[in-house]
Amino acid sequence: MADILNNMIPVKRAGRQTVLFSNPPAIISSATVVGPMEGKGPLGPYFDMVLKDDTWGEDSWEKAERKMFEHTVRSAMDKVNLQSGGVDCLLGGDLLNQIISANFAARELKLPFLGLYGACSTMAESLLIGSMLIDGGYAGRVACIATSHFSTAERQYRNPLEMGGQTTPTAQRTVTGAGCSIAANPTLEGDRLYGNVFVTAGTIGKVTDLGITDVNNMGAAMAPAAVDTLTAHLSDTGRGVMDYDLIVTGDLGRFGSEMFRELCLQNGIDVGNRHLDCGNLVFSGEQKVDCGGSGCGCCASVLNAYLLERIEKGDLRRIFFMATGALLSPTSSMQNDSIPGIAHGIVLERK
Amino acid sequence: MADILNNMIPVKRAGRQTVLFSNPPAIISSATVVGPMEGKGPLGPYFDMVLKDDTWGEDSWEKAERKMFEHTVRSAMDKVNLQSGGVDCLLGGDLLNQIISANFAARELKLPFLGLYGACSTMAESLLIGSMLIDGGYAGRVACIATSHFSTAERQYRNPLEMGGQTTPTAQRTVTGAGCSIAANPTLEGDRLYGNVFVTAGTIGKVTDLGITDVNNMGAAMAPAAVDTLTAHLSDTGRGVMDYDLIVTGDLGRFGSEMFRELCLQNGIDVGNRHLDCGNLVFSGEQKVDCGGSGCGCCASVLNAYLLERIEKGDLRRIFFMATGALLSPTSSMQNDSIPGIAHGIVLERK
Repeated sequence: MADILNNMIPVKRAGRQTVLFSNPPAIISSATVVGPMEGKGPLGPYFDMVLKDDTWGEDSWEKAERKMFEHTVRSAMDKVNLQSGGVDCLLGGDLLNQIISANFAARELKLPFLGLYGACSTMAESLLIGSMLIDGGYAGRVACIATSHFSTAERQYRNPLEMGGQTTPTAQRTVTGAGCSIAANPTLEGDRLYGNVFVTAGTIGKVTDLGITDVNNMGAAMAPAAVDTLTAHLSDTGRGVMDYDLIVTGDLGRFGSEMFRELCLQNGIDVGNRHLDCGNLVFSGEQKVDCGGSGCGCCASVLNAYLLERIEKGDLRRIFFMATGALLSPTSSMQNDSIPGIAHGIVLERK
Repeated sequence: MADILNNMIPVKRAGRQTVLFSNPPAIISSATVVGPMEGKGPLGPYFDMVLKDDTWGEDSWEKAERKMFEHTVRSAMDKVNLQSGGVDCLLGGDLLNQIISANFAARELKLPFLGLYGACSTMAESLLIGSMLIDGGYAGRVACIATSHFSTAERQYRNPLEMGGQTTPTAQRTVTGAGCSIAANPTLEGDRLYGNVFVTAGTIGKVTDLGITDVNNMGAAMAPAAVDTLTAHLSDTGRGVMDYDLIVTGDLGRFGSEMFRELCLQNGIDVGNRHLDCGNLVFSGEQKVDCGGSGCGCCASVLNAYLLERIEKGDLRRIFFMATGALLSPTSSMQNDSIPGIAHGIVLERK
């Protein structure tokens, strides 16, 4: 097999899981919408729009979530004066069964659409595939998006909110939020190039499962996947943690982040003070969400509101952004399955 | 906007929705597993494996479905002596909430994994993205797969089977089946190239909705999307129906196929006797599934068992394969939404 394996590595690949972009896509625009509670959190001022009411005038939370999806894409397009013909492909998903938020919003947006399901890893999955479409020459501009909503997720995955159930000490809170990035071929944009942030590489995750079965501790279920993807990324690229200003995870929360750092150390990787988890950033201690935020809208909104701005300003030079997903369903949990996790990673850097 | 739109078309794109492959990926292997009823249908002899019992020795249908997913990928890899390191990326999905069949099978397969949700359009979506990964140089070989299971779909989307409910005259039957294609960079394979079928182009679908609300007539809900994608494909490429030996749709069934042909005529496209629907092929009249098969395993198993063989043998020279998906969920139906559809298309041809 050895010679076949050697032949298997074309120029745009490094190692088993990592892809390198020869003409790195630029992030030319981004937009976010979040719910009232997220707006009151520490990142509140960074979000483009904070809803006063999480139904947003719709007659169900599901309809509000799809409106967030649609509005966020339109808003990111509007910021750079793109009309419908200016975006070649929409890539995204959400947490609802059959990703209905994405599907129904895509109907209104009328863009060629690739639906993804990566649970909370969707933001990185969409940017990873979208960047390959651009660097590969299949698209000039793509819109990449993920969204989640506390109230739709609660009644789908857990219990109707009307029950008023209590959460466990390890439970995280699904973020009501949507985040969209528009990635573009920088040569296409020419002098019109907005921003200076580029996607230079990506690492496709593998499904990892250490046997966690507690659906109220999904951070712990996802941490091994983040460690696996970071380990693969560093090995594939020959880089170390010090080559990044930040190693970002999606929504491991407080306990998941601790587990991530410990498992990294066991793999010989010391993330030191360079690790940051979006789930730990989005709520403040006073909001009594002790274990942080979760949901694919968590890292989607933190990336598109806060992290991109820090890179644009030169405060961060290069980060490895990993969105982490717990790949369970209520059915798999009822059938006594453990919770597999996955993490996809992208390298974002200022040029 | 005019000059921007003109600038928007890189070399590997034709028109708004179509991508062209400069180094078309080869389909080097394929495999299928189907349930007992599908095995008794007209295509029975073409399938690699027919289950005697749709639980396949597992203690739930869901676990049987994920076993079908895993087995089909392994089987396609085994046929061309590929070990785990020989496949760079797995792309696929299924119909279950949170695509648990795909996620849990991907855990066992230990391959870098991109989870997709396109309902019954998943087989074409996975081959479309997978082909871009190969032609773009990001992967040497990819495994593309979709699966569905009658018994898991019934209890998730409709009613528990134990209720013994009757179906309506327009209802289709979800196919219990999995189909996997392995696509590869042909220059990588060199003299070892298996088969002579290539993916030469693809058309990314848009979500279309003519307002159909009958969940027992999904063929009608999906037909407009197939018409939209075919129309875009022919316009983007400057081709006509006569450039194809077959225009294949995924699972429109009897009524959906009629609607497809009529709507095509309204768009000035006469598919004549060149249209074939996988849903209409999989069961015989004696099996009393009058409106045919559905589910993403329907066209996945028909493509990988029957259509690829016909192209390989030279019986068909070039086909346009469109997998059609109905993007509803039980929640969206309960909330009085209509049923949006999507169709992704790929061009398969013999060289």
